[in-house]
Amino acid sequence: MARWESGSRERLAEAAMRLYATRGFDQTTVAEIAAEAGLTERTFFRYYADKREVLFTDQASFEKLFLSGLAETEGEDPMALVAAAIGRAADFFPEEKRPWSRARQQVMAANEALAEREQHKMSALARSLTAALVARGIDPTVAALAAEAGVSVFRRSFAAWLAEGETRPFAQIQDEVLAQLRGLLAP
Amino acid sequence: MARWESGSRERLAEAAMRLYATRGFDQTTVAEIAAEAGLTERTFFRYYADKREVLFTDQASFEKLFLSGLAETEGEDPMALVAAAIGRAADFFPEEKRPWSRARQQVMAANEALAEREQHKMSALARSLTAALVARGIDPTVAALAAEAGVSVFRRSFAAWLAEGETRPFAQIQDEVLAQLRGLLAP
Repeated sequence: MARWESGSRERLAEAAMRLYATRGFDQTTVAEIAAEAGLTERTFFRYYADKREVLFTDQASFEKLFLSGLAETEGEDPMALVAAAIGRAADFFPEEKRPWSRARQQVMAANEALAEREQHKMSALARSLTAALVARGIDPTVAALAAEAGVSVFRRSFAAWLAEGETRPFAQIQDEVLAQLRGLLAP
Repeated sequence: MARWESGSRERLAEAAMRLYATRGFDQTTVAEIAAEAGLTERTFFRYYADKREVLFTDQASFEKLFLSGLAETEGEDPMALVAAAIGRAADFFPEEKRPWSRARQQVMAANEALAEREQHKMSALARSLTAALVARGIDPTVAALAAEAGVSVFRRSFAAWLAEGETRPFAQIQDEVLAQLRGLLAP
């Protein structure tokens, strides 16, 4: 991808977020986003299928992030595999992405349909992780429990990472949240 | 409620399930359900707001089941509170309900919108349990982790309870699935 193209994509995303945050997601049109970014609608549609796609990485890429961590880990310990999956996903949230993610979170919280889509995305992720564990020979119930525990840890870590004033890196938060879950379930 | 009224409600539910299972949910009308049950549409609407409501207990009653178990349990141990919540919910699935629940599950599996509604119901349950734990003074992240672990155990237990040939009672399955989750997360 040429440098200017990459710049357009980012400008569009930032323009969209400014408008979503001030006017609301439903009240913002693609034409307005393009104008705000100083680009054409046609350019917008070169990068995004619709205005919702600015907020959501496509499901396949999102899941791939987790599944690649799992695929590269050996053994059959379900939680070790799940920890590798969510550990890899933490790389997707470097410090410089935190302000954008915080803005996105506020837009999502203000729009029920977007919040539902986020929920749906997480449920689909849990099902994909379950399937990947089952493919490794793990019992389906155990696989689902491990996958759902992993997604729960990921979601809680993501929420904590976005909290006002939070400065710990994503990976550190996630290690601590996983430890909290282990502590909760210790016999 | 008079005895005949209670009988009509059950007849309608059974007629609906027969039609959903053979024709599919989308292809079944309320008029057909009423006719199959030998009752009028007006009687149907005395018990159910629509044909979907036959499959779903209203969210408030569903959540109350869990929340009452939690409310009656003392202390501040998050997993003890969650275990009490899902333990109480197990009472809602006695042996005589298993065939109906199995038929319902097949209808749900064949219809994406129904499956999504079920997912939505579980997510809302997790949020309500989280709120109840937070109201007991538990840290929000810990509360969400415990609530989501509980809902995960409940869902996996429900799926196992419905499996072909499964004969263990719901409460026993749930104790075993919770023990599996504890084992998975043991350090």
